[in-house]
Amino acid sequence: MTVAVLSALIRPMVEQHIPDSVQAHFYTSVEELYELAPQAEIGWFDMDDKAPMIEAVQRAEKLKWLNSIYAGLDFLPLDMLHRRGTKITNGIGINAIAIAEYVVMGMLNIAKDYRTIVRAQDRHEWLMDAPGKIELAGTRALLLGYGGIGQQVRPRLEGFGVEVVPVRRSGGDGVLGPDEWRGKLDQFDWVILAVPATAETDGMIGATELAAMKDSAVLVNVARGTVVDQGAVTAALRDKVIAAAMLDVTTPEPLPADDPLWDMENAHITMHLSGRAQNSMFRRSAERFVKNLHAYVAGDSLHPLFDPVRGY
Amino acid sequence: MTVAVLSALIRPMVEQHIPDSVQAHFYTSVEELYELAPQAEIGWFDMDDKAPMIEAVQRAEKLKWLNSIYAGLDFLPLDMLHRRGTKITNGIGINAIAIAEYVVMGMLNIAKDYRTIVRAQDRHEWLMDAPGKIELAGTRALLLGYGGIGQQVRPRLEGFGVEVVPVRRSGGDGVLGPDEWRGKLDQFDWVILAVPATAETDGMIGATELAAMKDSAVLVNVARGTVVDQGAVTAALRDKVIAAAMLDVTTPEPLPADDPLWDMENAHITMHLSGRAQNSMFRRSAERFVKNLHAYVAGDSLHPLFDPVRGY
Repeated sequence: MTVAVLSALIRPMVEQHIPDSVQAHFYTSVEELYELAPQAEIGWFDMDDKAPMIEAVQRAEKLKWLNSIYAGLDFLPLDMLHRRGTKITNGIGINAIAIAEYVVMGMLNIAKDYRTIVRAQDRHEWLMDAPGKIELAGTRALLLGYGGIGQQVRPRLEGFGVEVVPVRRSGGDGVLGPDEWRGKLDQFDWVILAVPATAETDGMIGATELAAMKDSAVLVNVARGTVVDQGAVTAALRDKVIAAAMLDVTTPEPLPADDPLWDMENAHITMHLSGRAQNSMFRRSAERFVKNLHAYVAGDSLHPLFDPVRGY
Repeated sequence: MTVAVLSALIRPMVEQHIPDSVQAHFYTSVEELYELAPQAEIGWFDMDDKAPMIEAVQRAEKLKWLNSIYAGLDFLPLDMLHRRGTKITNGIGINAIAIAEYVVMGMLNIAKDYRTIVRAQDRHEWLMDAPGKIELAGTRALLLGYGGIGQQVRPRLEGFGVEVVPVRRSGGDGVLGPDEWRGKLDQFDWVILAVPATAETDGMIGATELAAMKDSAVLVNVARGTVVDQGAVTAALRDKVIAAAMLDVTTPEPLPADDPLWDMENAHITMHLSGRAQNSMFRRSAERFVKNLHAYVAGDSLHPLFDPVRGY
């Protein structure tokens, strides 16, 4: 029998679809996860916390396939998983729609300064003029990262009449390559970060890149906190080097309560909620897992495979 | 000479384009407007307040053409303008893009409960789960009114994978007629009001229509406060007959500080700011006026003509 160790949260969505040759154990606590992990050939060890996921992976010495609802798995012991030859399937694309909706919401809220409207309603105050008057129509967005999320962001922004220029490693028609975008930063009203967290993207937006942007530019980060030099972003917002930033991700997370970003009128902190803002994530993820489970049993390949060496 | 009485606000945008046969006077105050109005053959009497606009129109007995940046002119003495035979050009379409952007912003903010995120940032609190998890993707929107605004709303929502069903008087392919939508109200996640304010649309959404909607439905009103029975909407929100409402317009405006809507967690009041939330409105409106001014002098027809009898 192939032993699969799975979170009880997804039990109702997967249990009836498990092949006969697979024996599934469902954990309801960290303790149960730790106890079950060493037997697991297949593991779906997702928890709200990263630490027990790391620990479970370390204990799971027989693990041949690790699945996760998360897209970014940079927090796991990837070297070890690579050495062990564990196949990894991640949640790339599962929450891409939710994140893309968040990106556009954040851009609209900054353009119209919706936050000021929320606070006015809380005071029962009828504002006589719009606090934000920027229209998305006719603006230009640089989209760094054209994977699952970027590909969902683009059509949504194009519906608003935004010209979207994607950047991806492989280049392509109407797409900038990794060495082309820095010299064009002054041409964009929006710079959207949707790249995977890798050595290559670490700190890709720093003081130099921020200084090269328009002073009316808005930075949107739905990638990872580490993709930007957060000190440089904080200084750029304070000194109005750029107009505003929507930071769904920060370093560290949670952002400490005394971080200056919280109180900045042009910093919009969305607490890494973008990918969680959907009711269909578990359903989509469970459907994908079941499909892969049948492929695994049949000896077929799994999709989407996460490469622990590339980091995405 | 043809005398035109125009707001000084638009002077820099129109002055150099005024034909030789037109003598333009620019007012900078209500008093100047009242003094100049009786001479006006052409008038652009826009003010932040409605009362002086009404008074100026009454005083302008020679007025042959009245222009306005506003789309909805139901507050003017339309019967009198009709009797006098005054041609009216309005701002229909001028702010349609801004309003359409507001509609989508409001829908996203309700779907993700962005208001809770704003308040959490104000408290420096990192939320651990998304307060709103609805995705626009895969939902259905009934779009009542398919004029300038509705036609801008539709492609934006379609970019999000929302199925949009417009309603308009003239019907058409994939469009519901005025007698067809009431029976289908239970099929929509969003009911968007973008109709003109006329006798026909007055109170078109009341207790019966609200009760027919899904209890998860969201009402979005960017038309006029009078298009809904506001007491019925307030009761429906209180009793969770529908999930939420974005009310850009209310009865009266400003909404009194003691109105119960202000404090309702599912009422989102945007203070009739939707159409003001753009930086290009004056430019677009001035360009249109100049074009019409040349047409007027040449004896050509004006666009878009507002019909004081129909009310749009």
